[in-house]
Amino acid sequence: MAPPQTNPANEDLADVVRLIERMRNGERRAISHAVTELERLSAAAPALLQAMQPHLGHALVVGFTGSPGAGKSTLVNAYTRYVRSQSKTVGIIAVDPSSPVSGGAILGDRIRMTATLDDDGVFMRSLASRGHLGGLSPAAVRVIDALDAAGKDIVLIETVGTGQSEIDVAEVADVRVLVTAPGLGDDIQAMKAGLIEIADILVVNKADREGADRSVRDLQMMQGLAAEHGDWVAPILKTVGAKGEGIAELAEAADRHLAWLRESGELQARRRAHLRLRVETILKERVVREADQVLGLDREVERGFASRTDPYRVADRLFEGVVRREAEERRT
Amino acid sequence: MAPPQTNPANEDLADVVRLIERMRNGERRAISHAVTELERLSAAAPALLQAMQPHLGHALVVGFTGSPGAGKSTLVNAYTRYVRSQSKTVGIIAVDPSSPVSGGAILGDRIRMTATLDDDGVFMRSLASRGHLGGLSPAAVRVIDALDAAGKDIVLIETVGTGQSEIDVAEVADVRVLVTAPGLGDDIQAMKAGLIEIADILVVNKADREGADRSVRDLQMMQGLAAEHGDWVAPILKTVGAKGEGIAELAEAADRHLAWLRESGELQARRRAHLRLRVETILKERVVREADQVLGLDREVERGFASRTDPYRVADRLFEGVVRREAEERRT
Repeated sequence: MAPPQTNPANEDLADVVRLIERMRNGERRAISHAVTELERLSAAAPALLQAMQPHLGHALVVGFTGSPGAGKSTLVNAYTRYVRSQSKTVGIIAVDPSSPVSGGAILGDRIRMTATLDDDGVFMRSLASRGHLGGLSPAAVRVIDALDAAGKDIVLIETVGTGQSEIDVAEVADVRVLVTAPGLGDDIQAMKAGLIEIADILVVNKADREGADRSVRDLQMMQGLAAEHGDWVAPILKTVGAKGEGIAELAEAADRHLAWLRESGELQARRRAHLRLRVETILKERVVREADQVLGLDREVERGFASRTDPYRVADRLFEGVVRREAEERRT
Repeated sequence: MAPPQTNPANEDLADVVRLIERMRNGERRAISHAVTELERLSAAAPALLQAMQPHLGHALVVGFTGSPGAGKSTLVNAYTRYVRSQSKTVGIIAVDPSSPVSGGAILGDRIRMTATLDDDGVFMRSLASRGHLGGLSPAAVRVIDALDAAGKDIVLIETVGTGQSEIDVAEVADVRVLVTAPGLGDDIQAMKAGLIEIADILVVNKADREGADRSVRDLQMMQGLAAEHGDWVAPILKTVGAKGEGIAELAEAADRHLAWLRESGELQARRRAHLRLRVETILKERVVREADQVLGLDREVERGFASRTDPYRVADRLFEGVVRREAEERRT
């Protein structure tokens, strides 16, 4: 990662606008800089987010979820090569689960995307999902915006398949691809029935392996049991990511789904729901942060613990403290 | 479920105290009533939560997590029979994932606990984890409190194994049991490494099946890779839930862990951390609810969407609205 060239806390609006121009020219260092600022929610981030607004909404966001072992990384790599061959630019966000205790990445030094690292039309960032165990953090969502504002035609998100991350990806992706592979076991059928409901495209990867047709039949059966959403029926595709087989069909299905989203009004509905989710998350983070600043969360929890106060009363006291300080600030 | 006999919204403190007395006498209808009030967070819930406070902290809370197919329900059933044979009372909370789209339970009409349904020393409640996909909702946490206040010696929580639910159970359980079984596949190794770090006891259930020793070795190996927490090393036990084998050893390990928790001060630390998590959750839910009441979340999101305002500014406006109303209420 290139070191930041400027201190964005001191940048005025003109500097932010210049940064966005450089991002949109495809300058890797500018994108990397902006992504880092947004990931960390630095002092420069609010101005950057505001200035990025007019440039958002261009990218097609495709989310890849599914069990470990389904070959998602290889599939994302093959998908990237395919859309690059059509001269589209790509941003990739790989979300790795991190250990809740040690904080270290569980998957370790997974080698990724070697085929695309020297291509300026591809920008990739790996994020740890601290505390989210594979889920999408608010930081990841801001990074999607940065890649969108940078003018990438397609943003691919790859997460490790825990139940929660699939739900999170469903909130932000325009196209939700659920990836499985032959022989991953039927024990997770119960889980999948719920996940199938939120998938737009179902993929059996490693389809050159024995059992691929059975996996397709299993998916068809589970799809029959699941509730439909709208009049889109998720196609079931076979791919071999490692050989690039079935990728053109996958990209074509994604384009068809985007067209359906636009025509049905579902695209607007999804993006509106996503804005609502983000606003709620920001509100929640803010009230906890202010409560901590005003009264100290640890101190109040300690008091409540010692006096056996129920959590609702402890929360009441903290909320009161936040309101009082905010009201005082307005008076002065 | 018995219908509520009184309308608790009109109950005064004396009524709540009487309800808690009846719960502590083991009256099933009283416990059922209180659990329902707390699950729904009805108007009576705050008074009930407050009156329950002096009775909390007695129950040993044991959480069972692990992949579907590991036999957790059978194991919980066998564990219940064993501790009942020692005259301890038991509360059981089974968290079923519900479909995020249809709202229906994924697992359907799973038959549970037939052996214990006619025993007054056992109280069981099945909860759907709407939107949490197997995770513990704040409602589930309040139900744990109700069973604790009712004087149950042991509260067992069983969740479907998604990554998120394991983390949630880790937050509330005194003893965290991670259950696996031979032949569940190694594809989830990466996941398990993280989960092993937060488990207090590791169980290979269905240990009369082929491959049980290999499962034990796999767990030992993964345990070696995982970060230690404190000086407790999770024992690896073999059980056959369906035959009641290994259950006495499991209960004994749980007791040993509880003794360690007490001696090391970890019990207090965990319960303090849990209180903090609950306070944060309550604060977050409150700010969103009030923002919705004051300005209308949908309306403000709609305005922000139409004017392409970034989510931080929409959240700012909502937060301002909440503070303003609260401050006005204090002045009048």
